[in-house]
Amino acid sequence: MNIIKTTAELYSDYQSKMEKIADVRNAIAVLGWDQETYLPGKGAAIRGQQITTLSTIAHELFTDAQLGDTLQALQSREDLTATQKKNVALSLEDYEKNKKYPAAFVAALSQTTSDCYHAWMKARKENSYAVFEPLLEKMVQLKKEETHILGYTGHPYNALLNEYEKGINIQTLDTVFADVKTSLSPLLQAIAAKPKPNNAFLQQHYPKDAQWQYGLKLLKEMGFDFEAGRQDLSEHPFTTSFNPHDVRVTTRVDEQDFSNMTWSCIHEGGHALYEQGLLISEYGLPCGEAASLGIHESQSRLWENNVGRGLAYWQYNYPALQKEFANNLSNVSLEEFYHAINLVQPSLQRTEADELTYHFHVMIRYEIEKGLIEGSVSTKDLNHTWNQYYKQYLNVDVPNDGAGVLQDIHWSHGSFGYFPTYSLGSFYAAQFYAAAQRQMKDLSQNIATGDYHALLQWLRNNIHVHGRFYTSNELCEKVTGEPLNFKYFMDYAQAKYAGIYGI
Amino acid sequence: MNIIKTTAELYSDYQSKMEKIADVRNAIAVLGWDQETYLPGKGAAIRGQQITTLSTIAHELFTDAQLGDTLQALQSREDLTATQKKNVALSLEDYEKNKKYPAAFVAALSQTTSDCYHAWMKARKENSYAVFEPLLEKMVQLKKEETHILGYTGHPYNALLNEYEKGINIQTLDTVFADVKTSLSPLLQAIAAKPKPNNAFLQQHYPKDAQWQYGLKLLKEMGFDFEAGRQDLSEHPFTTSFNPHDVRVTTRVDEQDFSNMTWSCIHEGGHALYEQGLLISEYGLPCGEAASLGIHESQSRLWENNVGRGLAYWQYNYPALQKEFANNLSNVSLEEFYHAINLVQPSLQRTEADELTYHFHVMIRYEIEKGLIEGSVSTKDLNHTWNQYYKQYLNVDVPNDGAGVLQDIHWSHGSFGYFPTYSLGSFYAAQFYAAAQRQMKDLSQNIATGDYHALLQWLRNNIHVHGRFYTSNELCEKVTGEPLNFKYFMDYAQAKYAGIYGI
Repeated sequence: MNIIKTTAELYSDYQSKMEKIADVRNAIAVLGWDQETYLPGKGAAIRGQQITTLSTIAHELFTDAQLGDTLQALQSREDLTATQKKNVALSLEDYEKNKKYPAAFVAALSQTTSDCYHAWMKARKENSYAVFEPLLEKMVQLKKEETHILGYTGHPYNALLNEYEKGINIQTLDTVFADVKTSLSPLLQAIAAKPKPNNAFLQQHYPKDAQWQYGLKLLKEMGFDFEAGRQDLSEHPFTTSFNPHDVRVTTRVDEQDFSNMTWSCIHEGGHALYEQGLLISEYGLPCGEAASLGIHESQSRLWENNVGRGLAYWQYNYPALQKEFANNLSNVSLEEFYHAINLVQPSLQRTEADELTYHFHVMIRYEIEKGLIEGSVSTKDLNHTWNQYYKQYLNVDVPNDGAGVLQDIHWSHGSFGYFPTYSLGSFYAAQFYAAAQRQMKDLSQNIATGDYHALLQWLRNNIHVHGRFYTSNELCEKVTGEPLNFKYFMDYAQAKYAGIYGI
Repeated sequence: MNIIKTTAELYSDYQSKMEKIADVRNAIAVLGWDQETYLPGKGAAIRGQQITTLSTIAHELFTDAQLGDTLQALQSREDLTATQKKNVALSLEDYEKNKKYPAAFVAALSQTTSDCYHAWMKARKENSYAVFEPLLEKMVQLKKEETHILGYTGHPYNALLNEYEKGINIQTLDTVFADVKTSLSPLLQAIAAKPKPNNAFLQQHYPKDAQWQYGLKLLKEMGFDFEAGRQDLSEHPFTTSFNPHDVRVTTRVDEQDFSNMTWSCIHEGGHALYEQGLLISEYGLPCGEAASLGIHESQSRLWENNVGRGLAYWQYNYPALQKEFANNLSNVSLEEFYHAINLVQPSLQRTEADELTYHFHVMIRYEIEKGLIEGSVSTKDLNHTWNQYYKQYLNVDVPNDGAGVLQDIHWSHGSFGYFPTYSLGSFYAAQFYAAAQRQMKDLSQNIATGDYHALLQWLRNNIHVHGRFYTSNELCEKVTGEPLNFKYFMDYAQAKYAGIYGI
């Protein structure tokens, strides 16, 4: 006799399978965290193997036909809550997408990714794009193939964009980046015509331990829960989460550059607050996961820029900072400090760009990726294409491939469609922050007294608790009353930089 | 058509399966290491769940019938190397033992272990054995059942002893502990009649950072490879290995007690050198694993006691130590220091015992375990039984259950048969060290100049590289020319302590 399971039984089957998969994936995340923080040099090879083994296991668990059957059965049940219904729908979507990939493609992509990464490393070492090009070409071919596997409406690049930001397409991005060009460029020109603020005092000796302690203090004040997370050092700062009760950030400390640690700390802190704000009751399920990369980045950028590079933030924090680093800052006024940390200057490196020119770095990558996928841009001479773009949009000359087309790891990993989420994050952040300001009249005043509680609660209630329940578009409309609108970023930038530069 | 695989193909199937299992088990070890070193408080619950999930996966992989078939097929192949043959034989033995356990027993043991551990924690908090007793009783019943599942020759306790030290039985242990009583007791009495060396200077303020740095220095000098391992802090010192290229030790630092960090560091260093000395080419296979717990402990004890509490060791190290901690040691001579670190004094706590009285602590646990399993000792009033033993063998009065029968975690974990390996370790260590001294005439002289290279090479060649190829008995005979013989420990103790105490 074939006993029909109740919805509660089925859902429980589904949930326990998903938790098991999450356990394996989070174990991989622990191995990855350790790899970037504490792993001794010789341990790298077998660590790579261990991660591959667990990844294979996680993949096997998530392609298990029983899971598919359970999801299919649940889909037709009427007595699910809205959250349960959403979890089932999203898991089924993930499951079916996962099953679209032919084994041969997965194997080829895995091999090419490994080869491509090593070629990129070698190319950087030798400062020569030519070393990277053949593998990048192979990767682009595979990515084109992937667009057919995944399917798409309109432009093939949409398929890849959707992998990182569901619902986004080139129409939206073309509009957004057209706005960037038409609105942001004049502001940048106006800024360029003004004298540069002095920021030399940020590049003095700031002792390591004092910086480290200062970073911890900022995180604590933001609301980062050190009982549910920690900070460590790594070469490149990152945030990783093993569940909302164990979220880890890393930072780096450059004794000759105070900015390096400080805003990476606030940035990662913003990511971490999002992860700590996800519901542990939804552990392993879509509604317990972040909405998208763009929304994730909105949280880090909101804290880093809208809050952490704002005047109100430093009205509160600067006196203590000045005291802590009296050698460097005792003769620097709050206004001078505020201007210095908001210096706008076109540069070569995306990761070191200010919050305005940053979006030209992203736009260049977006244009190149779109072109590579549709075939209008070739990997041949991509270094020259890159350099032309940098001249055109940022008016900087790229001295060599290492400082140019080879600067990011993303393409060597096969991450095409990822870059735009960085800009989307900033634009969502500005739009969210404007909504928060409308809804909390004393927000700036709170921040000027070091009280971020209301802001964090607002982010928790409006964004964090929802997980993947809403797509980024839906979430944006729900929280701000309208779809993504570049105007909010532009208004923010205009008001802030007009003040700083006296425009 | 059924294609018969070549031996090389079969062995490769076997090896890749075992490597995969090792990857999962080592991932569990990473999660465990992180749990003891860096895990934030709230992360504990889901970490436990993650470890359980991976343990289940490792268990499933190791009970896979295909693995059994491959092992069976390999067993009849003639064209295996001696090492391959041994790997296959040991894996098959492990595999078949694993399969002996009925699922119901595994579930009951798992549940009881969890309950028993929590009861033990509660009992310690309330300082009351009565809280622990019912669960301990249940655990003992399950352990009795396990002896029948595993099967045994002679005494049922042999089945459990073999889980930790293959080939050992109560005949050997009864002989060894009879020797402990007849030979060691008179020495202890002679020592007790002499004035106690002053060791108060060890319990002064030794700054944390300086101690930590000193521990790292000792590890480095021993030959610990920091490119293939690291040291961190934890509440209880331990060694864990994820493969020979990633071996981690932990220590603790008590600012009021120099001994605490120093000898735990050398002890764990000894364990770690063993793990770093296993063959990475045998990763995942029995010949890439440690021979037994007793042999593992022989490595830690050899470094901790035979080397690290020896006069030669401090002839080299003391001048620098004295300089580093001048506040504490500038007026303490090498001889006074050497006497202080070898203070013999019966005490309540096994983990704090000196290297002589230590074995009475182990003997008491051995007698109790043997009695519990054969039924001649009852869990009822076991605290009183314990206290009587401590009075009888160590002449100390146990003030309460926490300082007595509740002091060790082992029984709450179901680890019956584990304790004897601690003593075996010391006895093997003395026997190995005597052999090393016979074979390397200038060993003491080398140590007195801070050169441990030859000793480490000797341990590598004679012990580490063999992995589980030999049982501890076989290894002992091979390395020293005879089976385990308590005489070597006694000779070592007699010579050393006669000198120190002027007996």
